[in-house]
Formats: sequence, structure tokens, C-alpha cells
Amino acid sequence: MKISSFLFSGLLAIHIPVVPASEMQEQVTRVQETALADNTAWELLESLTTEVGPRMGGTPGDALAVQWALENMKAHGFDRVWKEPVSFPYWVRVSESATIVSPRNQPMAVTALGGSPGTDGPVRAEVIRFADLAALEAAEPGQIEGKIAFIAKRMQREKDGSGYGAAVGGRTRGPFVAAKKGAVALIIRSVGTDNERLPHTGTISSTEPGRPVPAAAISNPDADILEAMLDRGGEVSVELALDCGFEGEATSYNVIGEYDGSGDTGTFVAVGGHLDSWDLGTGAVDDGAGVAITMAAAKLVAGLPVRPRRGIRVVLFANEEQGVYGGKAYAQAHADQLASHLMGSESDLGSGRIYQFRSFVSPEAEPAVAELEELLEALNIPWSRDRQAWGGADFSPMRALGMPVIDFNQDASAYFDLHHTANDTLDKVDASDLRFNVAAFATLIYWVAGSEITFGPVPLER
Amino acid sequence: MKISSFLFSGLLAIHIPVVPASEMQEQVTRVQETALADNTAWELLESLTTEVGPRMGGTPGDALAVQWALENMKAHGFDRVWKEPVSFPYWVRVSESATIVSPRNQPMAVTALGGSPGTDGPVRAEVIRFADLAALEAAEPGQIEGKIAFIAKRMQREKDGSGYGAAVGGRTRGPFVAAKKGAVALIIRSVGTDNERLPHTGTISSTEPGRPVPAAAISNPDADILEAMLDRGGEVSVELALDCGFEGEATSYNVIGEYDGSGDTGTFVAVGGHLDSWDLGTGAVDDGAGVAITMAAAKLVAGLPVRPRRGIRVVLFANEEQGVYGGKAYAQAHADQLASHLMGSESDLGSGRIYQFRSFVSPEAEPAVAELEELLEALNIPWSRDRQAWGGADFSPMRALGMPVIDFNQDASAYFDLHHTANDTLDKVDASDLRFNVAAFATLIYWVAGSEITFGPVPLER
Repeated sequence: MKISSFLFSGLLAIHIPVVPASEMQEQVTRVQETALADNTAWELLESLTTEVGPRMGGTPGDALAVQWALENMKAHGFDRVWKEPVSFPYWVRVSESATIVSPRNQPMAVTALGGSPGTDGPVRAEVIRFADLAALEAAEPGQIEGKIAFIAKRMQREKDGSGYGAAVGGRTRGPFVAAKKGAVALIIRSVGTDNERLPHTGTISSTEPGRPVPAAAISNPDADILEAMLDRGGEVSVELALDCGFEGEATSYNVIGEYDGSGDTGTFVAVGGHLDSWDLGTGAVDDGAGVAITMAAAKLVAGLPVRPRRGIRVVLFANEEQGVYGGKAYAQAHADQLASHLMGSESDLGSGRIYQFRSFVSPEAEPAVAELEELLEALNIPWSRDRQAWGGADFSPMRALGMPVIDFNQDASAYFDLHHTANDTLDKVDASDLRFNVAAFATLIYWVAGSEITFGPVPLER
Repeated sequence: MKISSFLFSGLLAIHIPVVPASEMQEQVTRVQETALADNTAWELLESLTTEVGPRMGGTPGDALAVQWALENMKAHGFDRVWKEPVSFPYWVRVSESATIVSPRNQPMAVTALGGSPGTDGPVRAEVIRFADLAALEAAEPGQIEGKIAFIAKRMQREKDGSGYGAAVGGRTRGPFVAAKKGAVALIIRSVGTDNERLPHTGTISSTEPGRPVPAAAISNPDADILEAMLDRGGEVSVELALDCGFEGEATSYNVIGEYDGSGDTGTFVAVGGHLDSWDLGTGAVDDGAGVAITMAAAKLVAGLPVRPRRGIRVVLFANEEQGVYGGKAYAQAHADQLASHLMGSESDLGSGRIYQFRSFVSPEAEPAVAELEELLEALNIPWSRDRQAWGGADFSPMRALGMPVIDFNQDASAYFDLHHTANDTLDKVDASDLRFNVAAFATLIYWVAGSEITFGPVPLER
């Protein structure tokens, strides 16, 4: 046991191997009350968005974020803080513009999709509309040869964010399908639920075979204007100019911090978010919130007078946005430490309140999850027993190896108004929502770290 | 009497000199019911924002708008449609950017203020913050010499839009005050109530003596970031590049349409809005809504089986945004026809619902205004008896000559979220709100045109 765990917050830590069931509820109530009055997450998020801001993978802002994470983890008393390299193709955005040039002139709010090639000067062509990706895939031969394909699908607002999955294929696969069909470029209606003149970027697929056409998203109001013109029946043409593309490789870092447990178990509960953001906003909700919530929850539990026996690891992943590079690198680097990872849980859906949780644990451990549900009852967070937890994008490669995970399902009703836009800034975050989510994460951490339950590895049936 | 007023909507118009009081209420109820079921205003607004879009004074879009107005008034059966020239200095926006360069790099959402000179290449300087215009006016000699002044005042959201007047001085007069104090440029927090990364443009004063510094507005979230950095105490520097400025004179037009009354009275009720908009959005709420509401209301009353005896004039004013040029030109051209203008009323506060009206009429006519209040009771629009109606910006020069006016006070709670931003697009407008406001304007028009009341001229005491 390290000296640091004896002395924390100026209080003597007492080594107890397991929190007895009789005490668990009482301790968790204290943890939750503390969390609901603690502004650490807000302070971290204010610091990250003010002092670092945009931090797209490989950019100077990303390097600054790594520095910020190392320093802040140390400042918050993590027992060990380190970084692990993550390399990926470096995508650069220089400029972007799109203007409807016929039947009249209308500049559009546009943003290149991450990973898109540039247009090599302005491209001017007729726009052909498709209702969705499936309609584009069904385009007749020659129908969009030399033209700009436009996917008009509108994302639906849902509490669970499920509208995203239903619409995002146009963004990730659309550029490749449009290329196969002979289009010169692809424009999509933003995959977002707002009506602001602020387009949503987001990556095209990093694994799809073939070459993509230059691809960009226009804001929902711009898509409305474009559609109103198309509805009138005449030819509608757009001039698109994207200066962007890949420029070699970049290396960033997963930043990892650990609080020791009070028992020398060699195991830990792993939480985290991704440190990178898109370049347009300051990454407050995506995923500054997840970074702040999980750091604050870990610190809170580690700072208790009686620290639980197992350790706590916070992983801040590199370049999630452009292809889960940090998450994949982490799984590769830590595949042989699967048994040390008692449980993983990522926060990466903004700052909306958690309203439910899902689990993915071994069948033997499943009944024990009811304990967590009981502990979360005060926060009104029931357990969805569908076993469909995926761990979040960044822990999903570890889950694929059998790491148990818990998903905290957040209210995502407003998340896709901001996601991947310039509007993703601190003013959109409610400090009390952050505190609430810290309470949930701290509960999970305390429960896993304080118990003797073995949750995995989870047998992989598929 | 003209033939056209005998045959309208395929029905025989019967000439009656005055609508008897006993029939007025019954007729108005029919007018209101018709308005609440009529989509003409929405259709006009959809057409204007789709087929014309941005129409800043003197631009090709503005010329297209004049053409649109002439054609649409003719298509909607106005008996006479004409245009009257309005000249003004032509202001051009080419490009604009602002980036915080120290303590870290943060691009800001920025827009040049209308009438601002350009920076002649990028200007890089330390930012000095002022709480409001008064604080800037009180700056110590030398305090901002060679620096960029920043007015941080935040506009307050109010139903009556009164937060605007309290904040807008920083925009209109700030650039002149900053120049006197030796600043190289002025940045203001947008005069707007939203938290979108979409800055609010708007004109600097067109009448203030002296020369302004280059001046731009940043969005509220950007102002928050800038303030968070300033709060930390170190030097904060910004690089500002505005390519904009005046380029000679331009001529646009007030577009005027008239429906004859059924009596040959030589008098009319005058309603309208301004045809120009800022360049960033499509001018749906500012002031496409006013154009659409007043055109639709006039058409509705003129299209009744029994058309009222007095005429209806709709004035769509040129270049209100940069200095009420159309309104001033109109008053100059029509000063000698004051007596023909029975009443004026402009719609220029978006599409929010009317909740109250104000009057400015001769003392003798004042008791009669109670009739209007009674007619508007079904729409729950009471009369504020404060006599403070101003007629709207464009009718205010006629009011200054003694023309009676009625103001319909609209719920402006959401208006300043959109006002002068790229976000001013059709999707923000509720069609039923438009119909409601048409019902109110049609009531006013019917009442004035159907009565024998003389409302003015109003004695000018001040």
C-alpha cells in the first residue's frame, strides 16, 4: 500500500478489504450527496474549454489537451499518471465553402466531413437529391455522373439518441457510394437535430474500402432552402470548394491516471472519455463532459476517508472522432491485462442526465448487478436488463475481448443539437447535470472498487 | 370609382360609405376567422426567402427583392403598384475573421457591423474589456490607445424587446467612442439573446459625427470564452481582419401597392414592413414576416365581398437596416399627402404574436380607439393607453410629421435570438403565428378603412 492512500484530503485512510453489504448503501448515499454538491467536474470542464479549446486529433490543440490532462490528473492527486502513444493519419481542414449558384445565389453554412479529400479548387455542378443512403445506393447508372449527390435525410430527435444511428450512414458510407456512382462530390443534410445555421462535421468511414468523393455537411436550414429550390423543379447547382485532406501521420496520446485502491489487488475499475474533439467548437459536450465527469467521479471516490480496496483508472482516449484510434490502441496495449480491468464505462454522450443503465457482464455476475440498481435507486436510474451495454466507442475494443462494461444511458434529446458543431461550447452545459452524472459514476466506481465481485471476462458468443 | 373595385374575387362589390357600427363587429369576426385560416402570408414568406433570400440594401439580392415585390403585388391584385427611388451609401461585406491569438489560439464567430470600415489587413492587439458603452466613454486617456476595445454588455431577454434599446448603443455609437479614445478597433458582444455561435450584425450609426474604428460583433459563446480568458488576468490578444466598407452610392426602391377603397375618398390606411434584410440570413423574421403579414392582411380586406370605402396602401421600405433610408425617403416624397394617410402601422418585429397595441392619434380621435380594442378582444389584444406608438422605424418619419400610428406590440421573447444573424431563416417561423398577426392587421385595416373617423394629424407637442 502506498503512503499516498493513507493520507488523502488530510484524513487517515483505513484499509478494509471489502465494503460490507450493510455499509455499502450508507457509504454510497454519502458519495452521492458529496457528488451532488461538488463542482469539480464543472471546474475541470471550464478549464479544458477555456485553456485548451478545440483539440482535433494531431493538432496543436490536441497536444495542449494532452499536456492539460497530465497536469490536471497530477494536480488532482492521481497516484500515477502517464501517456501512451496513438498514431493515425493526420487530417487537416483549411477552408470550406458552398454556394447555391442557380437558380439564385445563396451561400450555405457548410463544413467538410472529417477524412474528406479536398475538391482541388471549386467544383460547380447540378445537385441530385436522394432521400437517404439507400436511395443513393439505388441510383441508376449515369444518374449522378459528374453531379453532386445530396442526401436529404433528416435525423430524428430521440431521448436515447437512436436517430443518430439511423442517419449517420449517409455521412460515413455516403462518400464512398457517391464515388462508385460517378458523382463529383457529396453534400449531406447535417446529422443533427437542431435548426441552427451551424453544420455538423463528423468523420467518414476510416475502414470502408474504395475512395470517397469530397464530402461536406450543410446545416439543416440550408438543407431546407436547397430542398425548397429542388421542390420547384428546375435545375439547382452548387459550387463547392473544400481545402482539406490527409497530410501524413500524427501521434497523440491516451492519457491515463490511476488512483490506487486501499487493498493491493492489482485490479481496477476503468472509466473515461475521449480527450480529442472536433475543431469547430470547444468540445464541451463532446467529450469534455465525459472527461470532466469521470475524472471528478474518480477523484471523489479516491478522496473518501475510507478508500475502497480496488483501484480506479481514468483513461482519456486519443482521437476517438476520426476512427476510435485511442480506443483501439488501448485495447492492443492492454489486451494481456484484461483480468485487471474489473469493469469499464465511458461517458461520451454529453452532459444530459443519466436515466438508465445497461450491463454486459458474465452470466454468473449478472445477479449481482441488482446491487448496483439498488444503489442507483436514489438517483432514479433503473437497470435495463437487455445486456446490450457496449462500453462506449473507446472501451468497445476491450469489451470485444471480454471486458465487462456498464453503460450509463444519458438523455440525449439535446445532444445532437450540438454534436460536432461550432456550437459545442461550455454555455450549453448545466453544472447540476454534470454533478448528477458524477454521482452516478461515483456510485459505480465505489461499488465495483469496494466489492469482491468478479464481473468477467464475459464469454464472447458471437 | 374604379371598375376594379366593382369586380373583385369574382363577386360584386357593393359601395357603402361607412360600415355601420352594428355591422362592424360582425364583419370583423368574419375577417378574423378568414385570416386565421389563410396561408397567404406563409406562402409569401416562403416565396421571398426561397426565391430572393438575402437582400441587403444595394446588393443584387435587393434588386431581386424589388422585382419580387412588384410582381407579387400585381399577382395579388393590387390596383396600383409602383416603386420610388431611395439612394444611400453602398456598404459591402467581403470577408471577416477574428481569432484570439493569446493566451491560446481560438477562432471566433464574428461579423462586421454594417457601415464599419475595413481593417486594411489584419490588426493584432491586446483586448481591453468594458462592461458597457458608458464604461467605454469613461475610459482613461491612453487606456486603449492602440488596443482593441471590447464591450461585454449582454442583452437581456424581455417580452417587449426592451433589452435591445438598453444594449444597442454599444453597436451604434461604440465605434465612434472607441475611435475618440484611440482604439484601433472595437469588438462587441452580439446584441442578441441567444447562445449560438452566430454573431449578430447590425448597423453602426449613420448620423453620428466623427469617424468610427473598424467594428465587429462576436457571438455570445465567443464573448463568454473571451471573458473567461480575461477573467484569468493575463494579456489577451486578438487578430481581427475585416474587409468591408462603403463603395459609392446605391439606389434601391420603396415598393408601394394600393388597393382602392369602394368610396372615392382619396384616403388610405398605410401598412407595411421593410423589404431589405441583412446579408447573413434570408430575412425571414427581419423583416420578411412584416412584408408577408401586411401584404396578406391588405389582400384579405380588399378581397372581401364588400370592400371598405377607404383605400389600403402597403409600403415595402428600402434599406431600413442601414439607416431607415426608405422611411426617410418616403416621408420626404409624401409629406404633402399627410392628410391622405389615415393611419400608419409597420410590422417589423418578426413573427411573434401580437399581445397588445399602442396608439398615437389626435386627442379628439382617442376615444374612438376603444372601438378597435373591442374589435381586437377576440384576439386578446388589449390597448395600452400610454399613447407611445411610434409607427415602427419606417413610418416614424411620417409620424414625426403628425401621421397617426398604431403599434402592434409583438411577443419579442425569441426575436433577438435570430435578429441580424445567419439564423434568420424560414424554419424559425410558425405559420399559425403569421396567421394570427394577419388577423390583427386585417382588423386594423378593416376598421380604419371602413370608418369615417379622422385620426390626425396629431399635434406635435415636443
